[in-house]
Amino acid sequence: MTAFPDLYRYFQKALDEHSIKGNPDSLYAPIQYFVNIGGKRIRPILVMMSTELFGSKASEGLNAALAIELFHNFSLIHDDIMDQAPLRRGQITIHEKHGLPTAILTGDATLVLAYQYFEKYTAEVAMDLLKVFNSTALGVCEGQQVDMDFESMKDISVAMYNEMIRKKTAILLGCAMQMGAIIAGASKEKQELAYEFGIQTGLAFQLQDDFLDAFASSDHSGKQVGGDIIANKKTFLWLRLKEKASKEDLALIMEWEQKKTFNSEEKVHFFTERMNHYGVKDESKALIEQYTQNAFESLNALSNSTEAKQPLFDLATQLLNRKH
Amino acid sequence: MTAFPDLYRYFQKALDEHSIKGNPDSLYAPIQYFVNIGGKRIRPILVMMSTELFGSKASEGLNAALAIELFHNFSLIHDDIMDQAPLRRGQITIHEKHGLPTAILTGDATLVLAYQYFEKYTAEVAMDLLKVFNSTALGVCEGQQVDMDFESMKDISVAMYNEMIRKKTAILLGCAMQMGAIIAGASKEKQELAYEFGIQTGLAFQLQDDFLDAFASSDHSGKQVGGDIIANKKTFLWLRLKEKASKEDLALIMEWEQKKTFNSEEKVHFFTERMNHYGVKDESKALIEQYTQNAFESLNALSNSTEAKQPLFDLATQLLNRKH
Repeated sequence: MTAFPDLYRYFQKALDEHSIKGNPDSLYAPIQYFVNIGGKRIRPILVMMSTELFGSKASEGLNAALAIELFHNFSLIHDDIMDQAPLRRGQITIHEKHGLPTAILTGDATLVLAYQYFEKYTAEVAMDLLKVFNSTALGVCEGQQVDMDFESMKDISVAMYNEMIRKKTAILLGCAMQMGAIIAGASKEKQELAYEFGIQTGLAFQLQDDFLDAFASSDHSGKQVGGDIIANKKTFLWLRLKEKASKEDLALIMEWEQKKTFNSEEKVHFFTERMNHYGVKDESKALIEQYTQNAFESLNALSNSTEAKQPLFDLATQLLNRKH
Repeated sequence: MTAFPDLYRYFQKALDEHSIKGNPDSLYAPIQYFVNIGGKRIRPILVMMSTELFGSKASEGLNAALAIELFHNFSLIHDDIMDQAPLRRGQITIHEKHGLPTAILTGDATLVLAYQYFEKYTAEVAMDLLKVFNSTALGVCEGQQVDMDFESMKDISVAMYNEMIRKKTAILLGCAMQMGAIIAGASKEKQELAYEFGIQTGLAFQLQDDFLDAFASSDHSGKQVGGDIIANKKTFLWLRLKEKASKEDLALIMEWEQKKTFNSEEKVHFFTERMNHYGVKDESKALIEQYTQNAFESLNALSNSTEAKQPLFDLATQLLNRKH
């Protein structure tokens, strides 16, 4: 199976060649701009790795890979509006650059462009891809809505949080893996193991994101460390801390939650220190390890050779060990 | 072929039975609410009329009819945000009721729900439906973007306007007709005639909308008469008036365009009177007749019996003669 860097280069090249052009330019240029901002391209590469794992060429997975990357970009464009984010990966967001109406419409068109890539497959394969893609797309919308609902909710359990990140993040990685398996003609049973690898990797990925937001050193991430804490964002770390905190600490936490003006460093320090104290930091690390282990077990359950699976093991390990 | 009122009742019943439910309710309830606001249901009924025209049962067109109605609702939900519209058919819009983020997400999910209905067809039929639907959906986004671009553009020709309404309105009616033909297994040639009937009907429909906005009596439309004129909206009437106006009148028109505060009635009176004077009102009427005639010719070119085509003739005539 082809390794990550080679697939990354292959995908980037295809993305450049499939340049998104059309009329009017005021609709298509922002899409092209946003797609070119970059990103890890994990989802499309998972599609192609999965296509290869089940015996087809990576190139046969390319159109589904492009579809999933465009879907991911669609959801980022609309999420950035909802979050009122001025920047995405250090670049100005579409709604900041072109205004709200164009940003909404650009996102909509990007979603439709994603669906167009399924036309490149045979009717039978396209139908199977469409089914998993539709239910995933709906799940991602549901996850995003639940995440927004959390902002005004008081009692959020860790279980509810897990269900949210499952939908918002993990199922798209599951979908990527399953699409590759579909394209290569793998059995339903193998499709499910591939899907599960994606889900577990996705859960590990999101928890790691939240962990790094609180505990990475800022020179690695390029973002403000503790951004989630400053914004009272309900992450696993935050929710678990509230579950484990003493009455006294809970009172302090709720005091911090209410404060409109505060010293950011002081707030981040309070929370990270308490997360450490209550073992929530270690618990989060252990959970990330556990999800990664689960992902590996799904891979192990597949009869394919270990060598064929290596790039997927490598990718999951790399995601786990990243510093930003 | 079944007449409009019967198909309307059949579609409404199906829409009620396919109630849109899911988790979280905060995402699905607004969709259900918006779909229930109502509307003429012209697009889904065209799908079913076309399905019948080419020899299949209306019920076989139902899922595609539901898809196109959900697509139409998706585009209305997002258009209302872009237009900052507080009301849709007298009911409060989603972004007013639930805020911008939920309105964006509700629209997104509605679009995905539309795509899910194609899963109900065989792979071959679904693939053909997907192709026409994708290119139509993209065209509608393009038309909406061009319409927004018009707001800040100085020189818009009538030809540019026609191309815009073709994309923004007409192709969705064309798509409805073609989807019915695909489902019933009609030849490519017949599909194209059906598509063209939809296009021409759509053009007549949009021009009639603009005409009524300027010239209907307010007790029929339920909207403020002259809303487009008050908002400097670039309609056929507006653009053609500017093409035909004398130097002196053009100066007056441009003065009105610049005014921030004015008496609405006075502005509407000035424009409608000038539109009458320059024969633009009559020209618009004649053009609507022409498009309707073109639509009829496409229908006539089909070898099916006149009786089978009657509900489509009736529908187009009804749209032409409506008072609101």
